[in-house]
Amino acid sequence: MEQLKVLFHVSDNECWQRALMNIQNFLNDIGERGADVEVVANAGAVVAYYSDGGQLELTDQMARLSGIGVRFTACRNAVRAHSLDESLKPSFVEVVNAGITEIVKKQGEGYAYIKP
Amino acid sequence: MEQLKVLFHVSDNECWQRALMNIQNFLNDIGERGADVEVVANAGAVVAYYSDGGQLELTDQMARLSGIGVRFTACRNAVRAHSLDESLKPSFVEVVNAGITEIVKKQGEGYAYIKP
Amino acid sequence: MEQLKVLFHVSDNECWQRALMNIQNFLNDIGERGADVEVVANAGAVVAYYSDGGQLELTDQMARLSGIGVRFTACRNAVRAHSLDESLKPSFVEVVNAGITEIVKKQGEGYAYIKP
Repeated sequence: MEQLKVLFHVSDNECWQRALMNIQNFLNDIGERGADVEVVANAGAVVAYYSDGGQLELTDQMARLSGIGVRFTACRNAVRAHSLDESLKPSFVEVVNAGITEIVKKQGEGYAYIKP
Repeated sequence: MEQLKVLFHVSDNECWQRALMNIQNFLNDIGERGADVEVVANAGAVVAYYSDGGQLELTDQMARLSGIGVRFTACRNAVRAHSLDESLKPSFVEVVNAGITEIVKKQGEGYAYIKP
Repeated sequence: MEQLKVLFHVSDNECWQRALMNIQNFLNDIGERGADVEVVANAGAVVAYYSDGGQLELTDQMARLSGIGVRFTACRNAVRAHSLDESLKPSFVEVVNAGITEIVKKQGEGYAYIKP
């Protein structure tokens, strides 16, 4: 079977818990090596990369998923709009020029789109 | 014209009303036989299959749409996470192993994705 | 590079600000002529076309984006459900028979789907 490709779009900080559980359940179902998974965070959702408001388990989960191949990206416009310092982001987060461009390009490459 | 294929992803219980209205308006527009329609419910949205909190018209609408060919599925992870008994689900609901896998596969089969 | 094609689906009035910022950031990134962009508003989101509740900058932003080629459409079912007069809509808004049909068709034409 061809490798599945999935993009998760997270724009609300409140949706991270659900998004990470979606990804974990998906990988449990198809196997950790069964899909290319990318998360694009824009708007308010980039804040959780820097501080999960006491919910430390969120960034822990992200780091662990990153370790098994899930790619986490942040929209640079959103990082700046929230006065966050790009140089202080966690090492597992990649900043992209514009989140929407990333999402559009990935769909063009055959990634399924999921809004958790 | 080739048959249209559409997947509706419902993850919030609060979005069912809108989702069912979307589906009804869509079928009114293109004709009941004009599209393959599937609904994937995950996260909190699976609860409405078991009890619509007094809004009995919701499950009635689902059953009626099911009767004209709309497929309703529930994510098994979500059913378990909400301590629901799979054997007590309505007969028109099909439980799938993982909602996200179902959504990804359907997009791969050419289904349009809609988040109501 | 082939022209990018993107459809933004707005169903909540509260999401307009984010949607318009998404579009602006996207066009800033790829260039105003770099993509075909369409916005489909259904459900409660059609209300903002008629009155943005004092946030006049919303309709101003839409009109300006329309001027550089962004297409704004409204679902007729939603316009009627909110007792809005189709003849009083802003000139830059095109009413389509059913928002979901429009979204499905555009995805079939290769448009990426974004739910802001």
